[in-house]
Amino acid sequence: MTTVLVYHDLPISKYLMNQRAGLTVRGVDTSEEALLALPDADVFVTNPSGWEDRFLAGLDRGDWVQATSSGYTAFPVETFRERGITFTNATGNYDAAVSEHVFALAFALSRGLPTFIDSQREHDWQREHGTALTDWTGKTMTIVGLGSIGNTIAERALAFGMDVYGTKRSPDDYEGVLADERVIASDDWRSVLPETDLLVLTVPLTPDTRGMVAAAAFDALPDSAVLVNVARGPIVDEAALVDALEAGDISGAGLDVFETEPLPPESPLWELEDVIITPHVGGRSAVFVERFADLFLDNYDRRRAEESLRNAIVE
Amino acid sequence: MTTVLVYHDLPISKYLMNQRAGLTVRGVDTSEEALLALPDADVFVTNPSGWEDRFLAGLDRGDWVQATSSGYTAFPVETFRERGITFTNATGNYDAAVSEHVFALAFALSRGLPTFIDSQREHDWQREHGTALTDWTGKTMTIVGLGSIGNTIAERALAFGMDVYGTKRSPDDYEGVLADERVIASDDWRSVLPETDLLVLTVPLTPDTRGMVAAAAFDALPDSAVLVNVARGPIVDEAALVDALEAGDISGAGLDVFETEPLPPESPLWELEDVIITPHVGGRSAVFVERFADLFLDNYDRRRAEESLRNAIVE
Repeated sequence: MTTVLVYHDLPISKYLMNQRAGLTVRGVDTSEEALLALPDADVFVTNPSGWEDRFLAGLDRGDWVQATSSGYTAFPVETFRERGITFTNATGNYDAAVSEHVFALAFALSRGLPTFIDSQREHDWQREHGTALTDWTGKTMTIVGLGSIGNTIAERALAFGMDVYGTKRSPDDYEGVLADERVIASDDWRSVLPETDLLVLTVPLTPDTRGMVAAAAFDALPDSAVLVNVARGPIVDEAALVDALEAGDISGAGLDVFETEPLPPESPLWELEDVIITPHVGGRSAVFVERFADLFLDNYDRRRAEESLRNAIVE
Repeated sequence: MTTVLVYHDLPISKYLMNQRAGLTVRGVDTSEEALLALPDADVFVTNPSGWEDRFLAGLDRGDWVQATSSGYTAFPVETFRERGITFTNATGNYDAAVSEHVFALAFALSRGLPTFIDSQREHDWQREHGTALTDWTGKTMTIVGLGSIGNTIAERALAFGMDVYGTKRSPDDYEGVLADERVIASDDWRSVLPETDLLVLTVPLTPDTRGMVAAAAFDALPDSAVLVNVARGPIVDEAALVDALEAGDISGAGLDVFETEPLPPESPLWELEDVIITPHVGGRSAVFVERFADLFLDNYDRRRAEESLRNAIVE
């Protein structure tokens, strides 16, 4: 008999119930409830914003923590390792939504949708804006951060006839859709900027990546380049981005993440032309819970079969 | 020495000039000028809205008419054939822009961009709308009309992890990216509607296709389905579409073409939720002229080498 405790604001526990004989599912809504229930649970499912270090007291050697997120800096990974607690994340689960969000932003800019949506509100047939449209076929995309999401974006960009570069800390470790010579070491990422038409950020926020996209990068990009950020806001120097957009050093941006969230009402980004702002929803999808349940149940089956788990950070 | 006469509002003649020794390029701005210049020209480049049947008087046996468009019902094809005039169109030249326009509309709807763009105008961080987002991975797209554009859309949808059907008058003639069992005869197109999440229209307007997407089709689609029309407006029964959207028989639409264009200000389509309207700009792209010049010069070289031309309608 295995008991899984789910502490999450989405109906994950509902999707896990009655899926496996011998798996008892309990959902809780508050951290106090979670704290009380943890000692009786074998598996704990939560997200980084739900995690509190006091939960460690309720976890025993051999227990398993499954994060619903891809990022896991909020979890005490080293303590899990020391105490023999298995830890897995949900890498891959956001690939579909985030990569589609990237193309939604990039295509909305190339196909003039902000202007057409504004015109639609006025019942205005603004066909003359057609001269401003373009398409990305044959253009060059550079993806900063060839993780699971970045590689999914690369695969889709190739199907759209784009030339694609990606950056990775250790290019030799890359196993994905791009040819070897298109995978650039992170330290050299600026080398491809002069030929980059669409710069896509999918890299985790670390001391190395904080502020990496700043004035020097905007200067190196062609004036016609577009930035799409679905990673984390602080990777971009936001003041430098505003300057670059105002000066025409790049031509547009699709931004899902910001230095401060919610983006303050006084931010100049709201008003800049050829900027689309979405409120940190790149990973959101109605099918997220379903996909997460599939991942969890697969891992549950693997654990029972004593096979290695998917997305194991500590095993 | 070959003389090409270009009658078009885009700077096509500029892109053809000095590209080939022995090719003289002349651009004209009015049909009167075209009429006067045609007898001295060997090649005539124009679009359907520029064509007038009186131009036939200036065309001799052995001359060549290259349309800048994909559609060519406005051109007197049978007369060209009778008189030994070569006729080519620009099929393929719009594939990139139109297919990107399709995904721009579909992704904008799945990722909530109309709502977020409206919120952006108010400097409003509307994160709660994130619960309405979804993605197309694993969903089913049906493309009505597997021509050059339709096949390009199919290829890209496959890369996005979609299940794809396409319809074709003669499925046996299909040579493209879809497996045989995914290519449906046009007469059977309604059979796949119950499993279609995204219905994309790329079929030419003919007596057979006029009004084909009407109440019966909207009833057959799931309530969650989305329609994208980048073909021609009259293929859809627009009153039935408005009814279906208002009744929730389908959940949204991305529309680039309409029964009457410009779409009249009093059309209810402007105000419907989850409808995006663009003003017949699906094929527009800043790189169109460049792509057309490439096609024309390739055909010019083929003609000199007595090879068969690309996109030959009458050869």
